[in-house]
Amino acid sequence: MSSTYGQNLRLTIFGQSHSEAIGVTVEGLPSGFPIDMAALQAFLLRRAPGRNDWSTPRKEADAPEFLCGVKDGVTCGAPLTAIIRNTNTRSGDYSQLAYCPRPGHADYTAYVKYGASRDYAGGGHFSGRLTAPLCIAGGICLQLLQREGIKVMARIRSIGEVCDESEFTESVAGKLFPTVSDAAGKAMQQTIAAARAECDSVGGSVECVVTGVPAGLGDPMFDGMENRIAAVLFGIPAVKGVEFGEGFAAAALRGSENNDPFTVENGRIVTATNHCGGILGGITNGMPLVVRAAFKPTPSIAREQQTVDLRTNTPTTLSVHGRHDPCIVPRAVPCVEAAVAIAVYDAWLEYKKHKE
Amino acid sequence: MSSTYGQNLRLTIFGQSHSEAIGVTVEGLPSGFPIDMAALQAFLLRRAPGRNDWSTPRKEADAPEFLCGVKDGVTCGAPLTAIIRNTNTRSGDYSQLAYCPRPGHADYTAYVKYGASRDYAGGGHFSGRLTAPLCIAGGICLQLLQREGIKVMARIRSIGEVCDESEFTESVAGKLFPTVSDAAGKAMQQTIAAARAECDSVGGSVECVVTGVPAGLGDPMFDGMENRIAAVLFGIPAVKGVEFGEGFAAAALRGSENNDPFTVENGRIVTATNHCGGILGGITNGMPLVVRAAFKPTPSIAREQQTVDLRTNTPTTLSVHGRHDPCIVPRAVPCVEAAVAIAVYDAWLEYKKHKE
Amino acid sequence: MSSTYGQNLRLTIFGQSHSEAIGVTVEGLPSGFPIDMAALQAFLLRRAPGRNDWSTPRKEADAPEFLCGVKDGVTCGAPLTAIIRNTNTRSGDYSQLAYCPRPGHADYTAYVKYGASRDYAGGGHFSGRLTAPLCIAGGICLQLLQREGIKVMARIRSIGEVCDESEFTESVAGKLFPTVSDAAGKAMQQTIAAARAECDSVGGSVECVVTGVPAGLGDPMFDGMENRIAAVLFGIPAVKGVEFGEGFAAAALRGSENNDPFTVENGRIVTATNHCGGILGGITNGMPLVVRAAFKPTPSIAREQQTVDLRTNTPTTLSVHGRHDPCIVPRAVPCVEAAVAIAVYDAWLEYKKHKE
Amino acid sequence: MSSTYGQNLRLTIFGQSHSEAIGVTVEGLPSGFPIDMAALQAFLLRRAPGRNDWSTPRKEADAPEFLCGVKDGVTCGAPLTAIIRNTNTRSGDYSQLAYCPRPGHADYTAYVKYGASRDYAGGGHFSGRLTAPLCIAGGICLQLLQREGIKVMARIRSIGEVCDESEFTESVAGKLFPTVSDAAGKAMQQTIAAARAECDSVGGSVECVVTGVPAGLGDPMFDGMENRIAAVLFGIPAVKGVEFGEGFAAAALRGSENNDPFTVENGRIVTATNHCGGILGGITNGMPLVVRAAFKPTPSIAREQQTVDLRTNTPTTLSVHGRHDPCIVPRAVPCVEAAVAIAVYDAWLEYKKHKE
Repeated sequence: MSSTYGQNLRLTIFGQSHSEAIGVTVEGLPSGFPIDMAALQAFLLRRAPGRNDWSTPRKEADAPEFLCGVKDGVTCGAPLTAIIRNTNTRSGDYSQLAYCPRPGHADYTAYVKYGASRDYAGGGHFSGRLTAPLCIAGGICLQLLQREGIKVMARIRSIGEVCDESEFTESVAGKLFPTVSDAAGKAMQQTIAAARAECDSVGGSVECVVTGVPAGLGDPMFDGMENRIAAVLFGIPAVKGVEFGEGFAAAALRGSENNDPFTVENGRIVTATNHCGGILGGITNGMPLVVRAAFKPTPSIAREQQTVDLRTNTPTTLSVHGRHDPCIVPRAVPCVEAAVAIAVYDAWLEYKKHKE
Repeated sequence: MSSTYGQNLRLTIFGQSHSEAIGVTVEGLPSGFPIDMAALQAFLLRRAPGRNDWSTPRKEADAPEFLCGVKDGVTCGAPLTAIIRNTNTRSGDYSQLAYCPRPGHADYTAYVKYGASRDYAGGGHFSGRLTAPLCIAGGICLQLLQREGIKVMARIRSIGEVCDESEFTESVAGKLFPTVSDAAGKAMQQTIAAARAECDSVGGSVECVVTGVPAGLGDPMFDGMENRIAAVLFGIPAVKGVEFGEGFAAAALRGSENNDPFTVENGRIVTATNHCGGILGGITNGMPLVVRAAFKPTPSIAREQQTVDLRTNTPTTLSVHGRHDPCIVPRAVPCVEAAVAIAVYDAWLEYKKHKE
Repeated sequence: MSSTYGQNLRLTIFGQSHSEAIGVTVEGLPSGFPIDMAALQAFLLRRAPGRNDWSTPRKEADAPEFLCGVKDGVTCGAPLTAIIRNTNTRSGDYSQLAYCPRPGHADYTAYVKYGASRDYAGGGHFSGRLTAPLCIAGGICLQLLQREGIKVMARIRSIGEVCDESEFTESVAGKLFPTVSDAAGKAMQQTIAAARAECDSVGGSVECVVTGVPAGLGDPMFDGMENRIAAVLFGIPAVKGVEFGEGFAAAALRGSENNDPFTVENGRIVTATNHCGGILGGITNGMPLVVRAAFKPTPSIAREQQTVDLRTNTPTTLSVHGRHDPCIVPRAVPCVEAAVAIAVYDAWLEYKKHKE
Repeated sequence: MSSTYGQNLRLTIFGQSHSEAIGVTVEGLPSGFPIDMAALQAFLLRRAPGRNDWSTPRKEADAPEFLCGVKDGVTCGAPLTAIIRNTNTRSGDYSQLAYCPRPGHADYTAYVKYGASRDYAGGGHFSGRLTAPLCIAGGICLQLLQREGIKVMARIRSIGEVCDESEFTESVAGKLFPTVSDAAGKAMQQTIAAARAECDSVGGSVECVVTGVPAGLGDPMFDGMENRIAAVLFGIPAVKGVEFGEGFAAAALRGSENNDPFTVENGRIVTATNHCGGILGGITNGMPLVVRAAFKPTPSIAREQQTVDLRTNTPTTLSVHGRHDPCIVPRAVPCVEAAVAIAVYDAWLEYKKHKE
């Protein structure tokens, strides 16, 4: 199956790019939590398309309708379901995709798995649009975590070859194009513009930092924080890599460089460095949790590409029209925050269970 | 919790480094499968310590005892449990660890989570030794996949700064030090020897390739092959990053570079390149599945390190004695194969369910 | 948590009696199945209130709106979500229930569990109304099973002291008041009318028979067909007992009476009797699966009852107004069919996986 | 699959009647709990065979060996695995069962499901012997619950036609043959003796009462206490019915009879009666939880029975030799306690999570 995540909080995402609606059901939310609807809407807006130069012109209000689980804006303990109607769909753009899978997309694998009855319009259930309900669930988790003093913030780490090398700071939180170095941000926007100008797209990476997380979240082996977070992050379309702390760079280090010495700070045990990204043995150690996700370039490009006609099993070419982001990474930033918030809040509920 | 993985196949790993025994229970194996015990033992031997220059001198026969689930070497449909007795334990080596957590290890987080009653000897349930039962389960899955024409093979991709740049070939399968380029392999061994000589350790990365996997394995969103494989791989101690196909490198590419054009080969739809690592939308596309895992350097090093005395909450220093690998990566190769085989076989059972 | 069931098929039910909508998401449905919408609507109508003498006058069209998962009435492989808007709600009827829990209802336990923020109107998430989405999911499973030659049919077995003693026959399938003996059915309706006349309610039991089910469905121990079916059936409000085959009557029997001798019929192994209700060791044996569920009398009665004022923690009395069924059992018949169909279809998907 | 249960506590049972060993792994136990090994052994002894007139003469010490998860008798947070070696097996008794399924047993369904490779000796994984590891896990849960003031006690409710009509009292706890009325107990023993004398067996029922359970355990719909408890109880071989409170008797009652009026006792909200068995809407209401399980008569009887030769698909007869209980019910009493304790403790961990 597919679209369910979580052990203590459980969310189920449903919908296709061009179905009546998309949405999410979240079970396990505490009763009595007043959702800040304005803050949630502002969070969703960061992901929404059509707001600026670097995203698809498809405009969706993305205003969630809450069907149940809240009463007067307060959670009531029952499963919460929120939906977003799909209004601005132009299925005509996708007619050729019924038999010509787009390179780099799930069109072909969806065809193999679900056959002729699959909903190919707009990528169906595989569409990046499904990250909107993820952000509804994640946006609520962000608010729940905030109440516990836990903050989840992400920045664009790289676009194409341009990297925001600066150390992470909370300053990124309010930015429309969240990089620590604004110069790097400007260079990234130029990289996106260049790709767009050449009818191409470009990839990038996002870094997410969680502060205020207590030591003791997560479990050994298959339920470690790395496993839990990776299991959600790879649910965001286009994510092809996930790493924690030094991540792949740690593979080139010596133990004496990578180990984080323990020390005491204000009577609290901390580590002098944070190469491990706040996780040891799958369990948080009280330092900021640091995770990065690699996004491949948007596969939908206007250039002519080689594909196969599924009706005849013969090679042919395809130019993808429709409206697409030349770079998905800026809009992916809140999605990463949502995904990480969901995993952390789920683990936090587990953690709380074992505390007296 | 922790130690259970899988939906169609379910494995539960138990044991601590110095408990009576470690082991694994596997549910969902098909009935009537004759396990090739010699092949399984040979596979386990690749992970076993004490066999050569680059691993810990702790010697364990690692011969599994099958308690149930097999009859005359053939699976009988009931849950299979295999255990390995812990014989060559020297708990005395670990006495200081009761109150001085080793940097980079799970000692501190285990203390936070499980308190004074935790079993700290040898890392307890967090020990790399727990990959032995993982390899029992994975070794059986490898045999089951082989019967379906699916091969899972891994190689050392890098040790420290040394990388085996050559394209993956099946030639690595039989090698004691599995690199495609033997020159690279030699340089890696020197890197390990140098780290050992300096009482240090070094990290590395492993690449795993699965061939013969049909198109259609995996599911959208949270049950994609990337999610499923990452969820097992991060269960191997020291893994800090997981990527598929181009992985993090894809973040620097253009769509026109990264997209894999479809074409027809011998009447079968294939892609001309394989930047996606055989997975699109979480579902296999019939091309080889390619995954890489980053291993941090072994945290246990003989050098003096900074830590904290948990009894007094004051800084102190620690020199880790005991027997440890200067580089875990060579022994991790079969563990990666085991982990990937488990995830792929679990998905394969699901896939089979939907085929008529 | 609460509202998710299934391993190979997974359904999540959401909504409260008086929320915007109630609904269900079903994952794992095969792609390409044309749902017979007229048949589904007819099935839902059997459960709907307000159609005759023995049910509540609350009228709801109960016409499901499909948000996703179907395209032109055919399943597309993505999660299917259907909702029913709550239109005919009269929340005013429930104001006293904010602080006076109804005896026999979940009002008090919901208050304990979810506190002041719970949605008490109409029983909230605990309302029998939530069986409508169960019937949507179950109605689809019934159609899927029918395609495999598997029929799920239920009858009213007893109302109060009146029992339909006749052996089960398929004749019940089309009846408005499904009993084998119409005389028994008439007596049951009189029993209901008598309870209603006395401002009271009455309980009853439902028997469900599944024919055409192959031998081999289900698993040992905790995933046996009994466990699986009971786990759904107890999800229907008011169910207080579940039994299979002879059930509780088997406790009074000798082995020589209760054992079902094996024999051969048309070359097929069958049993001469079916005391076991088609299940041995948790696994179907190819005979009809027989299960019965006991329903307690509807707790909502117009008579004055003793309760406690939660504001003052003092005893008080309560007369439940609003519109309620004097006997829920007739409307529960399709709910039992739905629940059993879901469990059987879920097991059938598992079964199919292990067949070549 | 089969042999795993639980959400907050997870247990996996493995083994066959005549395999090397049987056992259980329990994840999610709190760290630091000192298991009272003597009490556990005494509990297991209540289930063990060969101790008196009414059970099989097969003698097994049933002394569990703890492989991991405990250190000096105290839980350490890691998964706990305990095994029992199978020593007193006489596989020769079972040779005919390779091709002649015993009526009422899982022999035939195991053959259908697992084929020729199944382990038929002694019933394999379907053997009642597998309740020994269930009792290990349950015995530990009983101790954990006891620490919270929660007691789980069961009695024999009926054997054949003889019923212990007396109201439940804690006096049964210490009894070798646990009935409230010793006269009823004596009559039951005579019923068993009579069945044995006639080479037959007899069924019965067990009633389990849980006191001290706080209001608020369990969840709506599919995770209610009824669903959770039934899901374990039906895992005990021979259980064919499960009911709560009045259970099937409630089906014959009026609402005015069955509803439990709320009242206040020592400032605490209680119900004047307990027809609901302590559960409303799936959630405990603070009153004693009452559940009954129906056991069919042991299918293994010495009388000649009709069966089918699987080699030739022709009818034949079978006399089951070997050593069998004429009535499993007395030995099932601790198994019911174990099963209920597991379900309640699992729910209690969930409950604790939501308490501040």
